[in-house]
Amino acid sequence: MARALHTPLAVSLGDPAGIGPEVIAKCWDNRSAFGLPLFVAIGDPRSLAAVWDGPIEVVDDPRQADAAFDYGLPLLQINAPESDMPGHPSVAGAHTSLDSLEIAVGLARSGSAAAVVTGPVAKEQLYAIGFSHPGQTEFVAERCGVSPGNVVMMLAGPTLRTVPVTTHLPLAEVAANLSSALIESRGRAALRGLQRNFGIAEPRLAIAGLNPHAGEGGQLGREEFEIIQPAIAALAAEGWRVTGPHPADTMFHTRARANYDAALCMYHDQALIPIKALHFEDAVNVTLGLPIVRTAPDHGTAFDIAGQDRADPRPMAAAIRMAAENAILRAEAA
Amino acid sequence: MARALHTPLAVSLGDPAGIGPEVIAKCWDNRSAFGLPLFVAIGDPRSLAAVWDGPIEVVDDPRQADAAFDYGLPLLQINAPESDMPGHPSVAGAHTSLDSLEIAVGLARSGSAAAVVTGPVAKEQLYAIGFSHPGQTEFVAERCGVSPGNVVMMLAGPTLRTVPVTTHLPLAEVAANLSSALIESRGRAALRGLQRNFGIAEPRLAIAGLNPHAGEGGQLGREEFEIIQPAIAALAAEGWRVTGPHPADTMFHTRARANYDAALCMYHDQALIPIKALHFEDAVNVTLGLPIVRTAPDHGTAFDIAGQDRADPRPMAAAIRMAAENAILRAEAA
Repeated sequence: MARALHTPLAVSLGDPAGIGPEVIAKCWDNRSAFGLPLFVAIGDPRSLAAVWDGPIEVVDDPRQADAAFDYGLPLLQINAPESDMPGHPSVAGAHTSLDSLEIAVGLARSGSAAAVVTGPVAKEQLYAIGFSHPGQTEFVAERCGVSPGNVVMMLAGPTLRTVPVTTHLPLAEVAANLSSALIESRGRAALRGLQRNFGIAEPRLAIAGLNPHAGEGGQLGREEFEIIQPAIAALAAEGWRVTGPHPADTMFHTRARANYDAALCMYHDQALIPIKALHFEDAVNVTLGLPIVRTAPDHGTAFDIAGQDRADPRPMAAAIRMAAENAILRAEAA
Repeated sequence: MARALHTPLAVSLGDPAGIGPEVIAKCWDNRSAFGLPLFVAIGDPRSLAAVWDGPIEVVDDPRQADAAFDYGLPLLQINAPESDMPGHPSVAGAHTSLDSLEIAVGLARSGSAAAVVTGPVAKEQLYAIGFSHPGQTEFVAERCGVSPGNVVMMLAGPTLRTVPVTTHLPLAEVAANLSSALIESRGRAALRGLQRNFGIAEPRLAIAGLNPHAGEGGQLGREEFEIIQPAIAALAAEGWRVTGPHPADTMFHTRARANYDAALCMYHDQALIPIKALHFEDAVNVTLGLPIVRTAPDHGTAFDIAGQDRADPRPMAAAIRMAAENAILRAEAA
């Protein structure tokens, strides 16, 4: 699979004080063992040098990455006015991380990069410099001209993919924020994403209930009857292969997972608990609904361990591999 | 471990029309492969004969089980007026299942059985004959003279144990039903159970948050500050080893699980999703806080597959093994 793409992936280093630079450098170190395709990093070279002794190949254009890749980590450099110490985020670092993201998305939009993989950023610092999106996903959506309501986050591991309908809400507010329209819209985006990014012609979506035992016939909550079932019926009427509402606790064991291509979950932890319990080292955050492929490792900046050579590069490697796989499938279908 | 107990375990067949008789018969068939200790079944012999061709050794007293065990499944028989067809539950069957449970608990209370393992029952049928407890657990608690509020359900698998603080509530009602007192009481019962049933002298309890990212410093809900942290502080002040509130999505991967002996979860699916994702075939329901050991497989009657030789006996085998292990540890500590 490595080099099956004609253009490199664009990988933003994320916050220079976080573990992004370290895990991306380790990915280049282990590019053969991890089975990684050609990629070019984008960010401040000093954030790499602070945590890594390996060779950096500064390039001006992603087209130079192919020739450079065997000799060092190809890097499109951001000239930051000052550099951060690992574990000590700053406003300057936030500017660097935002510039990296901006460039990575631009390269993918123009076709100079095959896909975007984003390193972890620190939202608090980004907000301090005027960033007004809830996260990188919404920023990427806006730059691609897509309404944030039409993109959807999928967590994808080797044996399970989940998509949350609601995300960062207090648990007590989940039920009031569910609607049939929202479930339909997220479900449709998930199904189309399975087609476009994963090459599954007739994807199967298993839709979770909200309550224990999926409400047990209405005795443990009525959202299954009033909100979830109508959404399932509407998606089925459009010809999609959807099932549910399934009791969430019996959806995620090995045999159950064989019956669907993705699980649509009603809230954050319903989607995140099973994917991280099963695939902590290789779960990938995939943004569906964009004109480009964008993936990210499913972890944060981890400032507490930055610069200590303790960060696990496997989630980033999984994100890079999945970006390439998705980009190839999209290119084949186009 | 087999035969390390001087007395047999008492295993109720559960509803005669469910999969209880089949899985218990298969446990006897595979007693060596599954590493099972001496046990005596309790129920209607016709419910076994309807699904199994193996030998039944009817006994009058559990003390006869040891001599019989090599020749057939030892059975204390319940003389039901009529017998059910597999998959077709009846009121008569409900009486049989309740009688089996009553006898099994009585044997364990008197010391004639080392522990109780309960086959799955049908609550709907039990309610029809006047059963007024939410489930078998509360019935066993009452027969043992323990308030149902002082017993706690643990789901225990080979690499994870979870205890839910709230159980069968609509998700929207979970937050309003949490209190520091309830978390403390469930936590204390879980910790004592880890000592008594699992022989862990200084058990470590990891306590989950309620909201995504454990509330993210109050931005995604305040229950962590107002309800969960005070409960953790109170348990710690009593000398217990407790940590949290932990983000639920990062509590259940391999490395995280190594840091605790049980996870205290705020709601049903927070406890059940990870245990069933990881240990669907061998998760055991253990009732803590009783004067006797009681376990059960974590599945229901499965009337839809009863009588088809399709039921998986591994959860029942895990429940029998764990009952014996817990009984031995309790006997050693006594």
